Amino acid sequence: MMNCSVIRIPAGAPHDMSGLSAAVEAGLFRPEEVVAVLGKTEGNGCVNDFTRGYAVMALKGFFAEAAKGGAAGISYVMSGGTEGVLSPHFTVISRSGRGEPGVVADGLKSLAIGVARTRSFRPEELGRLPQVDAVADAVARAVMEAGITSPGDVHFVQIKCPLLTAEQIYDAHSREVSLITEDTYKSMGYSRGASALGAGVALGEVDRAALQEEEICTDWTQFSAVASTSAGSELSCCEVIVFGNSLSADGPYHIDHAVMQDAVDGAALQGLLDRYPGEELVQVLAKAEADPDGVIRGRRHIMLDDSDINHTRHARAVVGGVLAYVGGDPMIYVSGGGEHQGPKGGGPVAAVFRRK
Amino acid sequence: MMNCSVIRIPAGAPHDMSGLSAAVEAGLFRPEEVVAVLGKTEGNGCVNDFTRGYAVMALKGFFAEAAKGGAAGISYVMSGGTEGVLSPHFTVISRSGRGEPGVVADGLKSLAIGVARTRSFRPEELGRLPQVDAVADAVARAVMEAGITSPGDVHFVQIKCPLLTAEQIYDAHSREVSLITEDTYKSMGYSRGASALGAGVALGEVDRAALQEEEICTDWTQFSAVASTSAGSELSCCEVIVFGNSLSADGPYHIDHAVMQDAVDGAALQGLLDRYPGEELVQVLAKAEADPDGVIRGRRHIMLDDSDINHTRHARAVVGGVLAYVGGDPMIYVSGGGEHQGPKGGGPVAAVFRRK
Amino acid sequence: MMNCSVIRIPAGAPHDMSGLSAAVEAGLFRPEEVVAVLGKTEGNGCVNDFTRGYAVMALKGFFAEAAKGGAAGISYVMSGGTEGVLSPHFTVISRSGRGEPGVVADGLKSLAIGVARTRSFRPEELGRLPQVDAVADAVARAVMEAGITSPGDVHFVQIKCPLLTAEQIYDAHSREVSLITEDTYKSMGYSRGASALGAGVALGEVDRAALQEEEICTDWTQFSAVASTSAGSELSCCEVIVFGNSLSADGPYHIDHAVMQDAVDGAALQGLLDRYPGEELVQVLAKAEADPDGVIRGRRHIMLDDSDINHTRHARAVVGGVLAYVGGDPMIYVSGGGEHQGPKGGGPVAAVFRRK
Amino acid sequence: MMNCSVIRIPAGAPHDMSGLSAAVEAGLFRPEEVVAVLGKTEGNGCVNDFTRGYAVMALKGFFAEAAKGGAAGISYVMSGGTEGVLSPHFTVISRSGRGEPGVVADGLKSLAIGVARTRSFRPEELGRLPQVDAVADAVARAVMEAGITSPGDVHFVQIKCPLLTAEQIYDAHSREVSLITEDTYKSMGYSRGASALGAGVALGEVDRAALQEEEICTDWTQFSAVASTSAGSELSCCEVIVFGNSLSADGPYHIDHAVMQDAVDGAALQGLLDRYPGEELVQVLAKAEADPDGVIRGRRHIMLDDSDINHTRHARAVVGGVLAYVGGDPMIYVSGGGEHQGPKGGGPVAAVFRRK
Repeated sequence: MMNCSVIRIPAGAPHDMSGLSAAVEAGLFRPEEVVAVLGKTEGNGCVNDFTRGYAVMALKGFFAEAAKGGAAGISYVMSGGTEGVLSPHFTVISRSGRGEPGVVADGLKSLAIGVARTRSFRPEELGRLPQVDAVADAVARAVMEAGITSPGDVHFVQIKCPLLTAEQIYDAHSREVSLITEDTYKSMGYSRGASALGAGVALGEVDRAALQEEEICTDWTQFSAVASTSAGSELSCCEVIVFGNSLSADGPYHIDHAVMQDAVDGAALQGLLDRYPGEELVQVLAKAEADPDGVIRGRRHIMLDDSDINHTRHARAVVGGVLAYVGGDPMIYVSGGGEHQGPKGGGPVAAVFRRK
Repeated sequence: MMNCSVIRIPAGAPHDMSGLSAAVEAGLFRPEEVVAVLGKTEGNGCVNDFTRGYAVMALKGFFAEAAKGGAAGISYVMSGGTEGVLSPHFTVISRSGRGEPGVVADGLKSLAIGVARTRSFRPEELGRLPQVDAVADAVARAVMEAGITSPGDVHFVQIKCPLLTAEQIYDAHSREVSLITEDTYKSMGYSRGASALGAGVALGEVDRAALQEEEICTDWTQFSAVASTSAGSELSCCEVIVFGNSLSADGPYHIDHAVMQDAVDGAALQGLLDRYPGEELVQVLAKAEADPDGVIRGRRHIMLDDSDINHTRHARAVVGGVLAYVGGDPMIYVSGGGEHQGPKGGGPVAAVFRRK
Repeated sequence: MMNCSVIRIPAGAPHDMSGLSAAVEAGLFRPEEVVAVLGKTEGNGCVNDFTRGYAVMALKGFFAEAAKGGAAGISYVMSGGTEGVLSPHFTVISRSGRGEPGVVADGLKSLAIGVARTRSFRPEELGRLPQVDAVADAVARAVMEAGITSPGDVHFVQIKCPLLTAEQIYDAHSREVSLITEDTYKSMGYSRGASALGAGVALGEVDRAALQEEEICTDWTQFSAVASTSAGSELSCCEVIVFGNSLSADGPYHIDHAVMQDAVDGAALQGLLDRYPGEELVQVLAKAEADPDGVIRGRRHIMLDDSDINHTRHARAVVGGVLAYVGGDPMIYVSGGGEHQGPKGGGPVAAVFRRK
Repeated sequence: MMNCSVIRIPAGAPHDMSGLSAAVEAGLFRPEEVVAVLGKTEGNGCVNDFTRGYAVMALKGFFAEAAKGGAAGISYVMSGGTEGVLSPHFTVISRSGRGEPGVVADGLKSLAIGVARTRSFRPEELGRLPQVDAVADAVARAVMEAGITSPGDVHFVQIKCPLLTAEQIYDAHSREVSLITEDTYKSMGYSRGASALGAGVALGEVDRAALQEEEICTDWTQFSAVASTSAGSELSCCEVIVFGNSLSADGPYHIDHAVMQDAVDGAALQGLLDRYPGEELVQVLAKAEADPDGVIRGRRHIMLDDSDINHTRHARAVVGGVLAYVGGDPMIYVSGGGEHQGPKGGGPVAAVFRRK
């Protein structure tokens, strides 16, 4: 049987491995069983956020030593930006056993994790249908690897995707190749959007046959309710981690999700908490987005007009605050830029619980 | 009898008077009865935030025309910073009649407003005991003017105070006068702190006899639970507006307050809402602060270490989001920098209700 | 004969009129002769820079009083952003007499100013050929009004142009109208670019017959060597001020220009200074731009990849520093965003001199 | 004999070691001879700039592999902030042989490098006399190690020093220890200032006997004309690198310095260039500072009042632009925060030349 666990480790800085070391020593997780590390690092979460790469460099060094040869397959998904009360930390996701057919004795579905990655993309593929298709394929593979048998059992799909740097744009000019955008910051949105639509295609939420390339980052009625995508300059492919529940998995962890209708929809998480009274809330995973119409609950917001602070930073601060209030803990995973991830201005929120 | 009202008007920009015009035409308030306008404007809320002065210039022009000679005494308190979902707007506070002794027929205390201002301060007085004393005196006068008879009936004391500009610091150098700080940004904190302690002295929350000058902005155990102070470069005195309830006032409005223990303490506002079921929530007035220890609910926050975004901006985004969720509306007054206003890392939250 | 003058007035804040008052009292300029005020104000120079509007509101109030009925036609061109050493100030441009045919006695061409404005634009016209054409027409009118008889005598064309706000974008959505961009910040670039091409068309630098709409903000080989355009949210038309020399004008002032090949091309201004030894340098007018290829003098720059500080802010700081060194004074007019204003990464620099 | 060299390597990102790899392969430097690497990395140069630590982690990995056991003693001095045209790069400083007594055949003094480091500091020592003394001692040792026999032959003293983090401040609270400041950002200035005064003491520029602790960061008349100090969170001691000329060294490199009187004093570097016609300018090393009085060349600057962009960032952009113009290359080392490094508002500028 597959057995998956999720634990959180505080980080004093992007490269702070002391918490991870202590956790290994305390037997909280086994390095060779780690399949993914999700991190919230304290950079700006935008183009020139090097805290993500710094954390990955440190994590690779840590696991190379801690897990010996076993660390090669770990997926590192660093999301920059801990605005407001969000607290920098790593979420360590471990898996042992395999998601083989069979039913657990107690009939309870438990947390099951699957991972996959796409091929590397060329700059001109970013934010376009080839990215959608490659991600859809990778999500399908990860679902299968997790032993999850129904799309309804998938509750969070984390995808790390590339962006366009000034250098790549310059290079594309020299090759006379057209890009989806020539704005590095904007490229992050296109890449996140195409990746989310890929997850939606894989899970039957988005109709691939009807999807037009120009709808990417314009038609917000098409979205995945469980996709969470995050762009960074440190990779050129997409890395996919699927979180769901499966009868092929056992252990005390399970996951559920809801959809925030806007950035202050704390009721979405409250509903999840109410569903599992008496259980321990282990981690919250959510997306934050400034409503692209510039309006929330009928009121004008200034996030899109602010040339000093990027709107993704504003949005993370808000959603982080709301979910920290509802869940009682600010050390949660809230990632910015919710293109095609949940409805316009809103986003998915997933919660990992531990049965007592 | 005194009759006070509070209404909110959205603003499309700092100088946008169209909402105010429409409200006057619709008979929502009478310009000659306005005693104060509290604004949230969309600047950075720090030293070089000119949206406050811009709004005041526009408001003075508007009321000079709308109220004819009657606008001279209006107190304009603009608080910069509408981070996250906070929506730029003006809160118009009107008063008619006088707070004379006497008891209203229904025995219900209603919203009563009092205003006062201190003398102008010299730069070297800022953030020191002379500022504390002058503010304490002004608060006491405003309470009396409001016809409020008990400190327990005071629920919000809004104080607009000055800051030190680079020019003033330069000037002080030439006069060889020592200032509390030579950092313009830091001077905002000292001025807010001294003003809040002044309110605390007036309301019996702070013991003036025991207060030492060096405790200003260092001893966070001393605070007022109802003070809200805001610093700006556009004035050299302090302007005080006291909000409370009084038997000498009538009308449907009343006010109450609670104390947020930290930036995500939405339960404070929830408690106020639960106290008055069925009543309309007219406005929320609150202070936001990054916990000065760098820790919230046992987790590290990065607000104080962020050299790109000032911590007051982070804190407003968080508190604005939390209170917008609880109250259901992002067009609220959340002001940054809570020195000696509520406990360390927390702050006062007041709510104006309208009986049905 | 026409007689034009240029004087600079320091500003302690966007709304500081004390310097202007003092200058009027000292007889340095006559309010009723002012045709334009160019300002450098201390906002971010981007979308949410309200210092421009604030200054204009204060200036209108000042001139309404100082010039009585004569202030109606003054063109206010506020350029936000005084990064680095750039010092906030106003440049007051006065004109008396008319640019009528005739030759001055001394045969010397002197400073001549012409002003004009376009009609208001609809959001969907911004950054497109209708804007180019309307600006070209207005520039031609301003040249003629100035009594300038040859395009070679035009040395600076300042154009203030509109941008798209989030509200306008939202409104365009509801009308199902396509805009050149849906990014408020990016709209500033398109509006500046189209305006500059309009000046180029009027002066014979750009071939209107060959110009394609898609070349706006993509084909940087097309540019005006004297255009300086600046976008702001406070207007919906373009305002044009032409600076040149004319035999129909007299007085001690004249103007000349050069082209900076990149942001550190101080030699361009040095060349102008060397051309007029012994004359007083009255004002420098220049454009600043981050090279869009991300490279300057063969070295990578990070201005375009910086998500904390907009590239226009970086560029103004650099050009302001270089020209302050060469000219010896940091109180100069350096405006950001040089699309189609001078060559890629460079821009025009004009210098106003006063003969002794 | 000692033989020192200085070469510059462009960096595509803080962790980009490809340029260094290529340089080693091309034989441009020998890893085992490297004594120091000075880097300009593209973070904000303030408290939460992790690009410095990221670069150091990558450099340590690179040299551990490239230099085998020989990399232990390399001093890594990363200065964050490449505002404006400044281009991210590494300056690799190599040394072979020893600075032993003796005179070179040609009688020409050549570049000589010495390195040293202080003990670790406790938080409460930062910015105070114990830091001054420890640095003075380390500078003296480095001068001696370089074989430099006269203070007049020392032309640049680079010192990397620690800062106070929020965590250390919190910890000091719990120990009831008083710190020089409780503001992380401000602590950088105190640490830089004390370090610079230490260099001044060692070189006879500052009278230690007369120096009072309260003069640190207040009495700007005391300074070193060759100190360049840079604060970072990645170390707890000070690292010193002395650059000078010595008869005990040979090779084509030598160094000289001048003092910029303010941020736009490009004439200082121009003077150095004029002194060595025909020689190759290898690298420029300079400090940038916003004049603490808020005035430059009699004009108000806004750098100290800007709550969006730290004044060190403004200043680096300006000085980088001016020196890039004068020297013709933007890939130079300009570091921010010039407390006690050169006169108020100015700073040292050193130039490394290579004889032909």
